[in-house]
Amino acid sequence: MVDYVVYGRGSFNQLDEILSSHRVEGQPMVFLLDHHFENNDAFKSRIPLRGNDELIIADVTHEPKTSYVDEIASLLKNKFGQVSGIIGIGGGSVMDLAKAVSIMMTNDGMAQDYQGYDLVKKKAVYKVGIPTISGTGAEVSRTCVLTGPTKKLGMNSDFTPFDQIVLDPELIKGVPKNQNFYTGMDCYIHCVESLDGTFLNTFSQSYGEKALAMCQEIYLKKDQWDDNSDEQLMMASYAGGMSIAYSQVGVAHAVSYGLSYLLGTKHGIGNCIVFNHLQEFYPQGVDEFHKMVDKHQIEIPKGVCANLTDAQFDTMIEVSLGMKLLWENALGADWELKMNREKLRSIYGKL
Amino acid sequence: MVDYVVYGRGSFNQLDEILSSHRVEGQPMVFLLDHHFENNDAFKSRIPLRGNDELIIADVTHEPKTSYVDEIASLLKNKFGQVSGIIGIGGGSVMDLAKAVSIMMTNDGMAQDYQGYDLVKKKAVYKVGIPTISGTGAEVSRTCVLTGPTKKLGMNSDFTPFDQIVLDPELIKGVPKNQNFYTGMDCYIHCVESLDGTFLNTFSQSYGEKALAMCQEIYLKKDQWDDNSDEQLMMASYAGGMSIAYSQVGVAHAVSYGLSYLLGTKHGIGNCIVFNHLQEFYPQGVDEFHKMVDKHQIEIPKGVCANLTDAQFDTMIEVSLGMKLLWENALGADWELKMNREKLRSIYGKL
Repeated sequence: MVDYVVYGRGSFNQLDEILSSHRVEGQPMVFLLDHHFENNDAFKSRIPLRGNDELIIADVTHEPKTSYVDEIASLLKNKFGQVSGIIGIGGGSVMDLAKAVSIMMTNDGMAQDYQGYDLVKKKAVYKVGIPTISGTGAEVSRTCVLTGPTKKLGMNSDFTPFDQIVLDPELIKGVPKNQNFYTGMDCYIHCVESLDGTFLNTFSQSYGEKALAMCQEIYLKKDQWDDNSDEQLMMASYAGGMSIAYSQVGVAHAVSYGLSYLLGTKHGIGNCIVFNHLQEFYPQGVDEFHKMVDKHQIEIPKGVCANLTDAQFDTMIEVSLGMKLLWENALGADWELKMNREKLRSIYGKL
Repeated sequence: MVDYVVYGRGSFNQLDEILSSHRVEGQPMVFLLDHHFENNDAFKSRIPLRGNDELIIADVTHEPKTSYVDEIASLLKNKFGQVSGIIGIGGGSVMDLAKAVSIMMTNDGMAQDYQGYDLVKKKAVYKVGIPTISGTGAEVSRTCVLTGPTKKLGMNSDFTPFDQIVLDPELIKGVPKNQNFYTGMDCYIHCVESLDGTFLNTFSQSYGEKALAMCQEIYLKKDQWDDNSDEQLMMASYAGGMSIAYSQVGVAHAVSYGLSYLLGTKHGIGNCIVFNHLQEFYPQGVDEFHKMVDKHQIEIPKGVCANLTDAQFDTMIEVSLGMKLLWENALGADWELKMNREKLRSIYGKL
């Protein structure tokens, strides 16, 4: 679990104080800032840079690659030897990048060596997550999804969660409507997949139900998006992340990972593209999703696989079927009787 | 926050494995076991004692006193110098005792010196909480309520929460009906006080609403108590504790602390005795509480203050009015205009 959670409107202003007791003489705090803020001087001036602290603009045009993690970690090791901490400020990609870099500051080898379950053996450097978009749950999760040379898979370990997160609903105010929707739906889809999954227990259920109810409240019941909607989305993301920390996601994630791996489709929109066609697996959830899409007048891309080659379909199928835990959660221990290459090909064909 | 949470039916069987990486050569794990289990050899045999590990039967006939904390910590320091960890197995009193003893294993002076907010300065020894009764939220809280020579107040600090908790719903199966009800109502009353309080934020609200809904489900809607009720109560306790971690309790707790201080009334039943008469402050919650009392045919004690002297009433009033944060949460910053000695005397008179 994340050790320290600060929640509250304006709590970003406490960052200097939060970091102070974790500063090690001579070693900088390193801020990885979402490139979205690159030219936002007002926001950048609020980052409490001290001494030799380093501000790195994190390029998350694409979701983080293991090579990018290695590049940043090498740069920091060469320049500083060691750092006091890594602070990620941004969306889910920046959260994941910050977690991965802090792990690679203390673990030997390359980031790709740690893609998997419980492969990380040494405690990471102090790490802080500050979301500026909510929904992914990356701020609380035990993984950090990375695209490596052979797979798209996180570093799933006890050393992966942040030591500290700062949840300030002010920071997610004004996220563009489409981005807000896609990322919010990541949370909604998490919940549907977790609550419908065979791995579900009462811990995950209690979080999943609450997160789902908050998503329904803000995306279906309320007629206006207001400050309280931001607050609820931030907590829904947190609770949704807690829900899958103890269970797993399902079909939408398993299929969309293939899409992202091949086409670089971003996670939130990728999940929406896939979930849009999963009535067979999640009838009630997909029905409700369609209502939310209509209400918010979102255009979900279609035909994204229209011009792909057989080899490309095979790559996606390979990546997707590799997510065994997700399929097992979704379809049960005998999932291989219920899902095969042909069926998956037909799903990809619809997207 | 608690760093590690293991949840699941039968998860108590993983305790040996959970503790193994925290064992320090020559230093024992110390198990504080609720005296309720003193003669339960079947359960005691499941505690993974190794090497010089120590099993201490924790006498929680009365809620923990600072003197009892000092006594156990001295005994352990004299016998072992230092210990690998403290594992509390029992109800809320044992949770609080385990947290307090682990703090006193590394902090100088006496337990009473640390009753208050952020007075603990050194990290405690490794500590684990394993609830066998659910409702108090002590397994996740940032405090450990203790009765000292001058006050009933916890050691509220960043070093107080457990490093690890093990939530195994099997362990709370078969708690006697009255005990289950009183402790469950502690959770219910937490939620009402938190949700109605002026300190509420969306973090606390999301947890409080979910915990409240689970209490309503198991104590009002369901007709039979079953295994799933145990699971839901365990999660309600957890979520209720998380809710007040970021807000505060209110009138029922402020009044019942006075009662406990003077008469030694246990926390759960004390809250029920008080809440029973708080229609003025929590009309909807008290109404629903009465329905739950009726449904479960619980006899809430009455007339507990019938034969007290004026001096005794004054003591209770003193203790209660000292809980300023609770009153402020309940009645607002100007609470002293709304609550005074006379009014409080009349509340105590009704109990």
